[in-house]
This record gives sequence, C-alpha cells and structure tokens, in this order.
Amino acid sequence: MTMNEKEVLDALKKYREMDLKYEDGRILGSMCTKPHPISRKISEMFFETNLGDPGLFKGTKKLENEVIQMMGNFLNNNNPFGCIISGGTEANITAMRTIKNISRKKGNKSTTVILPETAHFSFEKAREMMDLQYINPPLTNYYTMDVKYIKDYIEDSKNRIDAIVSIAGCTELGTIDNIKEISKLAEENNIYLHVDAAFGGFVIPFLEDKYKLDNYNYEFDFSLNAVSSITIDPHKMGLAPIPAGGILFRDISFKKYLDVEAPYLTDTHQSTLIGTRTGIGVASTWGVMKLLGEEGYKNIVSECMDNTYYLIKKAKEYGFKPVIDPILNIVALRDETPLKTCLKLREVGWYVSICKCVGALRIVLMPHIQKEHIDGFVEALSSIKKN
Amino acid sequence: MTMNEKEVLDALKKYREMDLKYEDGRILGSMCTKPHPISRKISEMFFETNLGDPGLFKGTKKLENEVIQMMGNFLNNNNPFGCIISGGTEANITAMRTIKNISRKKGNKSTTVILPETAHFSFEKAREMMDLQYINPPLTNYYTMDVKYIKDYIEDSKNRIDAIVSIAGCTELGTIDNIKEISKLAEENNIYLHVDAAFGGFVIPFLEDKYKLDNYNYEFDFSLNAVSSITIDPHKMGLAPIPAGGILFRDISFKKYLDVEAPYLTDTHQSTLIGTRTGIGVASTWGVMKLLGEEGYKNIVSECMDNTYYLIKKAKEYGFKPVIDPILNIVALRDETPLKTCLKLREVGWYVSICKCVGALRIVLMPHIQKEHIDGFVEALSSIKKN
Repeated sequence: MTMNEKEVLDALKKYREMDLKYEDGRILGSMCTKPHPISRKISEMFFETNLGDPGLFKGTKKLENEVIQMMGNFLNNNNPFGCIISGGTEANITAMRTIKNISRKKGNKSTTVILPETAHFSFEKAREMMDLQYINPPLTNYYTMDVKYIKDYIEDSKNRIDAIVSIAGCTELGTIDNIKEISKLAEENNIYLHVDAAFGGFVIPFLEDKYKLDNYNYEFDFSLNAVSSITIDPHKMGLAPIPAGGILFRDISFKKYLDVEAPYLTDTHQSTLIGTRTGIGVASTWGVMKLLGEEGYKNIVSECMDNTYYLIKKAKEYGFKPVIDPILNIVALRDETPLKTCLKLREVGWYVSICKCVGALRIVLMPHIQKEHIDGFVEALSSIKKN
Repeated sequence: MTMNEKEVLDALKKYREMDLKYEDGRILGSMCTKPHPISRKISEMFFETNLGDPGLFKGTKKLENEVIQMMGNFLNNNNPFGCIISGGTEANITAMRTIKNISRKKGNKSTTVILPETAHFSFEKAREMMDLQYINPPLTNYYTMDVKYIKDYIEDSKNRIDAIVSIAGCTELGTIDNIKEISKLAEENNIYLHVDAAFGGFVIPFLEDKYKLDNYNYEFDFSLNAVSSITIDPHKMGLAPIPAGGILFRDISFKKYLDVEAPYLTDTHQSTLIGTRTGIGVASTWGVMKLLGEEGYKNIVSECMDNTYYLIKKAKEYGFKPVIDPILNIVALRDETPLKTCLKLREVGWYVSICKCVGALRIVLMPHIQKEHIDGFVEALSSIKKN
C-alpha cells in the first residue's frame, strides 16, 4: 500500500505533532536543545555528505579538521587530534578503547579505571563491552570524586591503574571534579586522564566569573598536563544539531590506538567507532561557532545561568531545597520520592528527570527554557506536592 | 573573529564545492548514494527529534516501532524487535554485544564466532573491543564461507562456538553466504546466527528472478529458523539519509542482553549502543518505504542490476574480467595492481575501491550511477591500463 508524497508528509506531520517541542518549555530534563537556526540551512547544504569516506568529501573533511582545531583552541590545545562523531557515548567509548589498547600494548591482561559513580551510563556500556574494571572513589559533599582517596589508592603499591575518568559537568548535578588536583596525581604517576566534558565543554569556557563559586576548581582542559582526551558535545550546549558529539585527544599520537584497517574506503584506516557518518554535525558546529564566537556563547551561558539562579530562588520560595549551589546550568531539587514526583509531573506535562546519587529531581536549564516556563514548572511541582 | 550568517553560509558553500557529488557519477566505490528527494522534507520536519529520550518524542518513537515492523514484514518476521541506529557498524557491534552477553550469561569466559574473512571491518572493531575469538572458514569459488568446513568444525566436540555471522551482500563482492544451509547447521547445534545484510537487506528482497543465478541460494532472512538478528541499513540501498542503519532481532527476548540502566531519561533502560540519536533516519525510512513500496524498490534494484550487467559487458569488451558473475549490484574486476590502478583512477577523477580477498577493483552500482558514467569509467580505466 504505497502513498504519494503529500500523503506521506501529511501522515508524518501527525506523528511529529505527538512529540514535545523544545519551545514549549516542557522539556526540563534533557541536555539537548533547539539547535541554532543557522544549522537548518547548513544541514540542507551538507545533507548528502559522508565523512566515513573522507576522500570523497574533501571539503567537509577539511571542515572537520578546522572545527577540531577551533575546539582545541578554546580547550587550550593548539595541536589536537579528534573527530566529530555521533555523541558523548561514542566519544566516551572511544576514550575507553584508547585506554584499553594502551594498556594491552603494555602487556596488561586487564584494564582498571578510576571514575565516579556519577559517571554517565555510556561508561557502563564501555565496561560491559570491554570488560573494564572500575574503581569508584567515595563522593565529596559536592558529589565529586574524593581526591585524597584517589591519591591513597594510586600510591598503594598493590594497585595498578590504567586511567582516571573525571567529569566536567556531571550529568546528574553539573558538578566538576577537582581535575586540577587529579591531573597532578595522574601526571606524577603517569596515568592516562580522560575528561568527560560532554555537557560542560561548551559551558565552562564561557562561564563568567560572577557565576563561579569561591574555592571551587573549574579547570578541566588540556592546560592540565595529564589530560589526554576530552569528550565535548557540540549538540548539547554548542547548539549544533544531532548528531554532533566530539572527542579530542592531546595530539595525533593517540590515533594509532584507534585505527582499524578500512580497505574499501578512500582512507586506508578509520579511527572512529562508527563508520558511515554524516558531515552535518561538522559543518553545523563550524558554522555555529563562527557565527556566535566566544561572545555569543558567553551570552547563551549567562542566560542559562541566570535562569538557573532564578529557578533556585523560585523553588526556595516554594520550600524546595537544592542539593548543592549550582555549578553549571543544572539544578537538583531534593525530593523524598523523586520517581513518583517525576511521573506525576509528566502526567501534567512537565518532563524533568531524577538523580541516582541523591534523592532529587534534576532540571537542566537549556537555552530553550524561559523564565515563564520556570514559573509554570515550580507552580506545578508545588501543587503536586500539596496533594 | 565572528562572521555574520551570510558570510558563514558563503564560506561553507566553498568547502562543500570541494566535495564530490553523487550526481556526477564519479563515486563508484561507496555503498551510500543520493537519498530519495522526499527525505529532505522529512529531515526538516524531524530536525530536532532525539530518540535517545523516547518519552519526549512519542510520535517519532511510534514511527520507529512501525518502521521496524515494516522492515520485519519484508524480512519474514511479524514480531521483530529492533532499532534504527547510526549504521551498519553500530548494528554489527550490537549483534556482537548480544552474542557476547548471551555467552557470558551461560558462564563462558570467552566468545567464539565463525565469520568469513571477507566480513566488514566493523567486526574487527567489535573483536578488538570485546576480545572475541574469530574463526575464518576457507572461502569457496564464490568467496563465501565453506559450509562443509563449518559443519566439520561445529561437529568436532573439541570446539565450542557461540555464533556464526554470515553475510548477505558482502562488502567486497556482493556475495551471499549459503545461509540456508548454515541456518540448518546452526539450528541443529543451537548456535546463534547473525546475518550482516547491511547492503543486501534492501536489495535481495526486491531482486527479480531474472537477475538470480541458477543454483545459488539467495535466502537470508528470518524465514530461516536460526537467524536471530539481521543488520540492514536504510541509508544504503534503502535511499534514506545518513544516519539510518538498522538492527532487527527475531523478537523482544533479545532486548535484555542489550539494556543498560538509563536513570536520566524518560525510558529507564536503553538498548542502543549510542545514546542521543536523531529521529531523521526513522522518519525518512518510514517515508521512503511508504512512498516507494515494494514496486518502487524493485524498480530501483532492477535499474542497478541492469547497470551492473552493462558494466560487465562493457568491461569485457575492453578486455577486463569480472571475478565472479554478479550476485548483487557490485562488480569486482580483476587487476594485478589494484591499489596502483585505483590511485591512478582517482587522479583522473574516478573513485573506485579495491577488494582485499582477491586482486580486483571494486565498483558499487548505486542508484546515482548512470550508463554514461559507466562508459566514461571503462574508457578511463582502459586508457590508464594502456599507459
């Protein structure tokens, strides 16, 4: 039973109408947002590109090299190697592949990694596939890794560690590990350090001082000597469309741990996990970055942080308590029955998510969220809690 | 240094012009092609969707369920479980994850898989990450797996096998393993059978009898009892845009081997390897399938097969020899120095690739290739060979 073009498009429109829309302000638990408008035009232009076969798409490949360089620049690395890939999960798996392959090359039979229990579940996928051993240090009051524990663990001669994963913009609470101190330890002990800045990578470099807490360490990038790789997703706070994830390595020397022979392609080796991949993410990231520049991203981040503070103020007025002072544009509100509250909120059309490490509702203040949405949400939450 | 919108788009246009275009007919070694025109309109409509968080995009998620059902229907499975994902690599890795997790659940310490040496290099990525053991049977005259060898290997009580991977539309030569016979063996011995039909999945079901060789087995789908999963990519011969890969399982019972806890999402578990993923592939596949129907795909496949035969006829006229009679729309032409020839062809603007299992140039007759392109290519090849 075929349909004509109009019938297909009319039918699809009906399905699309069942989806939530970012601009309605009801999506409060996602790290994705409405992409920058220019990215629609760019996507049309690069619609048919395939970076899985870069020799056919030399212009798009050149853009990828440039965009990795541009991202390297604001991450304090003038000579990065990297790729724009499907997202943070692929990026984190790619880092773990690198770590496993380095360890294997040294003759180790297993790969052991220190990472926080609040790490994104992409690390669980990596662990399961690659049989990695994870060590979870206890969490501090700020739900970040206890550096003292890491130090003691590493310095205990019984333990062998291949890598540390630290997080800059934790999925649950937006926190940043004390990466400066962790980097020192990693450097002294010659341990690979990967930073998952999937969310924070397009926030922290553009965060104005007035939003920074005293005595909190915001450093996370290649300026820290031990940092070998960073996950940073343009399709989150970078305002690029999906799929646009990013993985950056300190330099090209890491490529050899990823390369697989690719006999049918214009390049003889492929270092990405995924093969065929659209160039839309690359071109959009390039375009949005050129258009917004540092100033543009600063404005966006400041607006999100203002809304973050506004939500906290408003929530407190209604008697709700944030778990921590906000680090980035993520708020966790304490709740004794978070899953129940979350489901009740969904029934009335508000979509938040929950934390795992603490009983709390989790709200991400992405650029599509406006103050009026925050007002509506806090009122809805309050009304649910009263009943 | 920021640019305004016009400057960005003008600059990007220049990069895009360095890329090859499918319609120029010079891309002769890719399994991707120009997507069906309707998919541009569909992509605009579903531009902001994210199936990584399906509770937010319920309409798009409904489309995914339907499109998996539609694909199941033409693969002889009325009750499939599956996902539209980034491509064949993710699909094959997903199948291997399933196989490894089933094996692990049985208490096995290692996972051993029989697969042809002509398997796509995505299986090498899976092997490296998951420490799989591969057994490569010898190849027949048609560069497919020797079934007798598999039988003997399986029936030897010294060997334990977790799975067999067979290929329906091999990347190198377009061949199809004798999956009917392999399925019998797998069924008798209770072995998981995965079929990589990334390419062939949208070709074989639409291949008219006149293109089929005598005494060659084209069966590959769920009608064969042992087949548990199939990789089938809409973004190859299905005419959907990238990213639209597909993995189908016989039924929902396989989901549990893939599920990872996803605390921050509207669904509590995620079975895809990649997290955030656009709904464009889902909606486009749905739309193109509804628009073309069986008849439409048959016409496309017939045209590609006509061009395949045309290339072989033309090549023979110029003294070139195909490695085998064509099974699908892929041609391998014998060449003693394939890499050298391939690079010389590139210099004059023709992009073919090479085979690994035999000294040959590899040409994929995708829908963007017209007879005039074939004429030009064969003449260019002939002229290179004369010099």
